[in-house]
Amino acid sequence: MSNEDRAAIFTYGGGPVTVSPRTLAGFGQPVPFEYDPSYLKRFKDVERKVAEIFETDQDVVIMQGEAVLGLEAAVKGLCREGMTALNLVSGIFGKLFGDWMRALGVEVIEIEAEWNDSIDPADVKRKLDEHPEIELVVVVQSETPSGTVNPVDEIGPIAHEAGALTIVDAVSSFGGSPVRTAEWNLDITVAGPQKCVGGSPGLSFVSVSDRAWEAMSSNPGAPRSSFLSLLDWKERWIDAGRKRFPHVTSVVDINGTDAALDEFLEDGLEESIARHDLAARACRAGVEAMGLELWAAREEIASHAVTAVTVPEGISNQAVISHIRSAYDVMLSDGELGEMIDRVIRIGHSGPVSRSLNPIVALTALGQGLSDFGVPVEIGAGVEAAMQVLRQPVEEDGAAAFA
Amino acid sequence: MSNEDRAAIFTYGGGPVTVSPRTLAGFGQPVPFEYDPSYLKRFKDVERKVAEIFETDQDVVIMQGEAVLGLEAAVKGLCREGMTALNLVSGIFGKLFGDWMRALGVEVIEIEAEWNDSIDPADVKRKLDEHPEIELVVVVQSETPSGTVNPVDEIGPIAHEAGALTIVDAVSSFGGSPVRTAEWNLDITVAGPQKCVGGSPGLSFVSVSDRAWEAMSSNPGAPRSSFLSLLDWKERWIDAGRKRFPHVTSVVDINGTDAALDEFLEDGLEESIARHDLAARACRAGVEAMGLELWAAREEIASHAVTAVTVPEGISNQAVISHIRSAYDVMLSDGELGEMIDRVIRIGHSGPVSRSLNPIVALTALGQGLSDFGVPVEIGAGVEAAMQVLRQPVEEDGAAAFA
Amino acid sequence: MSNEDRAAIFTYGGGPVTVSPRTLAGFGQPVPFEYDPSYLKRFKDVERKVAEIFETDQDVVIMQGEAVLGLEAAVKGLCREGMTALNLVSGIFGKLFGDWMRALGVEVIEIEAEWNDSIDPADVKRKLDEHPEIELVVVVQSETPSGTVNPVDEIGPIAHEAGALTIVDAVSSFGGSPVRTAEWNLDITVAGPQKCVGGSPGLSFVSVSDRAWEAMSSNPGAPRSSFLSLLDWKERWIDAGRKRFPHVTSVVDINGTDAALDEFLEDGLEESIARHDLAARACRAGVEAMGLELWAAREEIASHAVTAVTVPEGISNQAVISHIRSAYDVMLSDGELGEMIDRVIRIGHSGPVSRSLNPIVALTALGQGLSDFGVPVEIGAGVEAAMQVLRQPVEEDGAAAFA
Amino acid sequence: MSNEDRAAIFTYGGGPVTVSPRTLAGFGQPVPFEYDPSYLKRFKDVERKVAEIFETDQDVVIMQGEAVLGLEAAVKGLCREGMTALNLVSGIFGKLFGDWMRALGVEVIEIEAEWNDSIDPADVKRKLDEHPEIELVVVVQSETPSGTVNPVDEIGPIAHEAGALTIVDAVSSFGGSPVRTAEWNLDITVAGPQKCVGGSPGLSFVSVSDRAWEAMSSNPGAPRSSFLSLLDWKERWIDAGRKRFPHVTSVVDINGTDAALDEFLEDGLEESIARHDLAARACRAGVEAMGLELWAAREEIASHAVTAVTVPEGISNQAVISHIRSAYDVMLSDGELGEMIDRVIRIGHSGPVSRSLNPIVALTALGQGLSDFGVPVEIGAGVEAAMQVLRQPVEEDGAAAFA
Repeated sequence: MSNEDRAAIFTYGGGPVTVSPRTLAGFGQPVPFEYDPSYLKRFKDVERKVAEIFETDQDVVIMQGEAVLGLEAAVKGLCREGMTALNLVSGIFGKLFGDWMRALGVEVIEIEAEWNDSIDPADVKRKLDEHPEIELVVVVQSETPSGTVNPVDEIGPIAHEAGALTIVDAVSSFGGSPVRTAEWNLDITVAGPQKCVGGSPGLSFVSVSDRAWEAMSSNPGAPRSSFLSLLDWKERWIDAGRKRFPHVTSVVDINGTDAALDEFLEDGLEESIARHDLAARACRAGVEAMGLELWAAREEIASHAVTAVTVPEGISNQAVISHIRSAYDVMLSDGELGEMIDRVIRIGHSGPVSRSLNPIVALTALGQGLSDFGVPVEIGAGVEAAMQVLRQPVEEDGAAAFA
Repeated sequence: MSNEDRAAIFTYGGGPVTVSPRTLAGFGQPVPFEYDPSYLKRFKDVERKVAEIFETDQDVVIMQGEAVLGLEAAVKGLCREGMTALNLVSGIFGKLFGDWMRALGVEVIEIEAEWNDSIDPADVKRKLDEHPEIELVVVVQSETPSGTVNPVDEIGPIAHEAGALTIVDAVSSFGGSPVRTAEWNLDITVAGPQKCVGGSPGLSFVSVSDRAWEAMSSNPGAPRSSFLSLLDWKERWIDAGRKRFPHVTSVVDINGTDAALDEFLEDGLEESIARHDLAARACRAGVEAMGLELWAAREEIASHAVTAVTVPEGISNQAVISHIRSAYDVMLSDGELGEMIDRVIRIGHSGPVSRSLNPIVALTALGQGLSDFGVPVEIGAGVEAAMQVLRQPVEEDGAAAFA
Repeated sequence: MSNEDRAAIFTYGGGPVTVSPRTLAGFGQPVPFEYDPSYLKRFKDVERKVAEIFETDQDVVIMQGEAVLGLEAAVKGLCREGMTALNLVSGIFGKLFGDWMRALGVEVIEIEAEWNDSIDPADVKRKLDEHPEIELVVVVQSETPSGTVNPVDEIGPIAHEAGALTIVDAVSSFGGSPVRTAEWNLDITVAGPQKCVGGSPGLSFVSVSDRAWEAMSSNPGAPRSSFLSLLDWKERWIDAGRKRFPHVTSVVDINGTDAALDEFLEDGLEESIARHDLAARACRAGVEAMGLELWAAREEIASHAVTAVTVPEGISNQAVISHIRSAYDVMLSDGELGEMIDRVIRIGHSGPVSRSLNPIVALTALGQGLSDFGVPVEIGAGVEAAMQVLRQPVEEDGAAAFA
Repeated sequence: MSNEDRAAIFTYGGGPVTVSPRTLAGFGQPVPFEYDPSYLKRFKDVERKVAEIFETDQDVVIMQGEAVLGLEAAVKGLCREGMTALNLVSGIFGKLFGDWMRALGVEVIEIEAEWNDSIDPADVKRKLDEHPEIELVVVVQSETPSGTVNPVDEIGPIAHEAGALTIVDAVSSFGGSPVRTAEWNLDITVAGPQKCVGGSPGLSFVSVSDRAWEAMSSNPGAPRSSFLSLLDWKERWIDAGRKRFPHVTSVVDINGTDAALDEFLEDGLEESIARHDLAARACRAGVEAMGLELWAAREEIASHAVTAVTVPEGISNQAVISHIRSAYDVMLSDGELGEMIDRVIRIGHSGPVSRSLNPIVALTALGQGLSDFGVPVEIGAGVEAAMQVLRQPVEEDGAAAFA
């Protein structure tokens, strides 16, 4: 059997991420009838657990498709022809938001940063001051294809103060970086189970503020009786006492996601954020010590979820990734979408692979793979630098064992 | 632990259906990166296997949400403001199609049958003759909430001859009754893994004829850059060599569905259809012998997937279902949607529960449950009648063992 | 795929029993190193949970082979050449005990009951009075092949009073009937996970009193440095602080058994005993109403774990069992060992299949199978009689729903 | 949740080894009745697959307990009081064999090598020439606690030529090094699923030659009617047409082992041996480049399954192992038994962890762990040396992608 007939032994990509055995067992649980009391209870539990990670008391809708469904639903729910929105673009997902809004007839004002950089909140404030007609600010907290983040902690309050609603793409920050929906006054945040909480793609998590529900309800173009409709969930599920779903739900995804969230919350949100940060720092230290270049312009804007490495001149990232997969049974990823596709190789460290020495495997695979293509790489130095980040002192009683 | 803290021991509902251990193990498999070669291969395998069950060579799109997504995508892909469509309504899903089309500005002509009956193909022919402007015929092959079927084998060719495209909702017939897409000239058939093939909700299977692709491509209103877009799948996936997905796919659903389809196809499509038919006949014989009434007006239009039983006068189906779940740990279902909700109790016999003596459990639970509410029910007679259908002769060598 | 290429859909045999999905997931958990702290903890947890079901505070040894290992280890640990033992024989396992003891040079006195009957405690008292040299009383609490039980609640105290040690085979009573080790003064009780607690064969549970440990320690012939040695477990594991196992343990069996015990104990021991009793009563009522004959001479000595049905004259139980498996995908069992093999067909109702309407499936399969061989069977009457046992009243609020 | 409440993320110990997801799914399969036709077929399949890896046509017995059961059964089956045996001791398992045989009254002649060295076949030949009364030669092919091997390929034929029977402990060589039972004339070889074939402990694989069966049958002391009896398996199972087991089998272990063997054989025996060799060489290169010392005296006698590293002076291996587990979530192992316990730290690379970059994780964990205790370790150099062993050239078409 070739190693291409089964999944790679180690997967470190932009996502879907490696899923823990406990969560896999969750996906493999028996499938109940959708109105079995145990399932209704579970569905509501998932909503509650997601809200806990969003750090919000507002409504959370679990839409039944991968997070891009939630993003599209949020935009289509809030956007009206002729309204003005401020779109903050620092990568491919930001660009996609602009395309969607323009197609809906929205007047889109954009602030664009370099795709290895992030949005300056001062620019946001200035733009909102200049354009009091702006009703909506759209921002990607973590641009997964670039491995960079935007300061939503500052942008959220600025937008709120200016009276604009916000849509925040928190897909790859959710669970790995703070997403303080309430504290930051975010109106719609969208995430999914398939990154830092260690689930798998298939659901959208959407938190919606009362102000956002009002805007949506009064928007004649907001999807209704549709797979894309947040309002269906509000009217048929939430407001009707959570007894009937607006359409059939993805039972297996709910089962597995519930297990992932349990595992996540037993460890704790703060612990998870710290762990993702640690793994990311180890990766970055390793990449630089190996003599490679990080895509992110600055350390402070690098993602906790994924580390993008600039592809060395003259090298095809596809060829390297394919060789690493075939020779070492390790799967890394490219830039995945649009203009990012061939500019980076990404090491994912979200979910279960944020633990233990996974960054060492990813760094060694990347280093060796590039070295096999003739790129000079200091693998040993990379591993040592990463271990300087990951190393932990011997505990008292352990130390005592040392003569 | 109350029995409401876990799934019922036996589930016989309209769906999601009970899933086999082998398929559950499929759902619990490791989650690969989406562009791992093993996953790309699997995704294409799923397409091929679905086409085999649709009995077609045309394109099959695996959309990443439950079958209602595929239904909505088909309607939005083919419908244009001002066009004329013929909608065949014999139940709640037929009604939903009409609502969707009217909301898109389609001129909808409807033929409506009683909701315990089916559409007469002669009426379809007549209507098409009267209205040559009809471009599209929409029909539900198997109305799951009512447990009734429409003769798509006749309607498909009639519509095709009249030059109209067809959209067929084959969700609960797929795998349990013939869906001869090619032979019957069906343009778009929509199904899902969560009924007779024994998977779980979360994907839409959509077969699309070349004629349908052409109509969609030239429809300016067809969804594009959207979760609802079939064209995205055609342009970014199929026509581009099946290398990149238009958006992130539901990996766990694909993994499990692949396992379900393998198990299904190893048994064989014809064997599965025969087995679903047998289970359905046993259920109907049992229901009638117990002294209860079938919802379907006639035996010939009863579904292979689910048997709807008319709720006896003065009885709340909810109360009975809830009592059966709590007292006997068996989950049956109501009519699930709209006007059907409180009119029937349904016994599902799709997928794994089409096997062995599952109909006996369902019949006994239903009979006892109703009896507990004071309805006179002949449980023993029902079981014996069902066994008359299921019984099999002793094989030669077995018989020889009998003195 | 023939239905003989996979496990039967429904399994109701003497054992191994059907295992719940949750326990199966336990078996499928990752395999840790044996001295991983999580595994050491789990192993000790299993010991504690088993002691809880044995209702004892004395040591529990988890031997690493199916329960017959524990039985052999108990006999070899306590028996010395020339000692006198009283063996109570009411079935095949009782007979096996006698063979083992005689092979070890023990003077064996036996009380034998008919194999469809049970031992009279008064006989035990009389024999102990007559033979004050008896040091050991050996008894099978539940003879699985015959589906009958002995009154260990009376025999245990009688033996204790007479100063004899006891070995009790509680394999198929454990978890389904009371096994009050402490209260009844039992010295060694042996059980396993594969019957009423819903696990799978592969481990022996052995509770050992201090008196039994003393006798074993002073027995020069007791196994040492052997897979059969209880003393190895005492000396290398228990007395040494539970840090190193005497030999490699069956990690997967421990993982799955721990899950089974959790599921069992969450429901509760008393609840489980009541449920096994109910299922057994339903089976017996059904068997008799169908016109078939129970093997057990009297209702009071029938097992909670398994119901043995006398094979009708002129019928081969093998042929019937094989036909039922092939025609209805239901697996029943024969008498399994020695002289019992062809005398009965057994319906197992231990573990998960003690729940819900499983007895109905087993009864219907048995009835139809025999009927297919020409035996006159009242299947409907059997199902109705069983349901009279299983039926439960509608709860208040449910009843209210009835007009 | 502390990381001690669940299994370590990475396990590299002497065994039980990490088990692949596919094999874990095998363990989690439904549990059939033992005489379900599907299970009888599976049991026989397992025998056949084991014989294939033993490279033999002789009988294979699958005993129902961890491999030490098979070892004890082999010794007790072949040994008689007063006979003479040659025991080859190069480690703790060799020593154990001697103890067992002496306890049975065997005249044991021993050749003992240093425990980091191996037996010289010339010594075996000389001893057999000197002692023509030797009837049995006992040898451990792979001493797991020391990570060293003996040349059974030479010893087997020498013993055979001298007319002696052989018992070979092949537990940790089976599947990772050649075990040519037929070609080398080995009479009894004992192995288990829990090392290089990637299963879990709970079964013994025992191949038995006709000559060995004869010797056992004529041995009055050979176990009979016992968990330890190979003869029970021969008489009640093999000779009786493989229809009834001598006692209840460990169904879950058989299920999972069958899956492990399938996965193993699909890859191929030769491929597996090459892969285990490669992982072992990478580990040894890494250990030496880090400045640490291998336990094995010479490269040629180092095991493919496990690499033992000498504990640096003044360091407690327990403290280091415990620190690595706690700080890095990686589980290594000590010397496990008797005198080996505190002399080494072992890196296991058997089964699934022989794949991909697992050796890098183990080496980095070991290196960092020792470094944390103040031992000077060149981690980077170790990783680079290991990668020099593991590196693979870029395939043609990949290379072409490099400018």
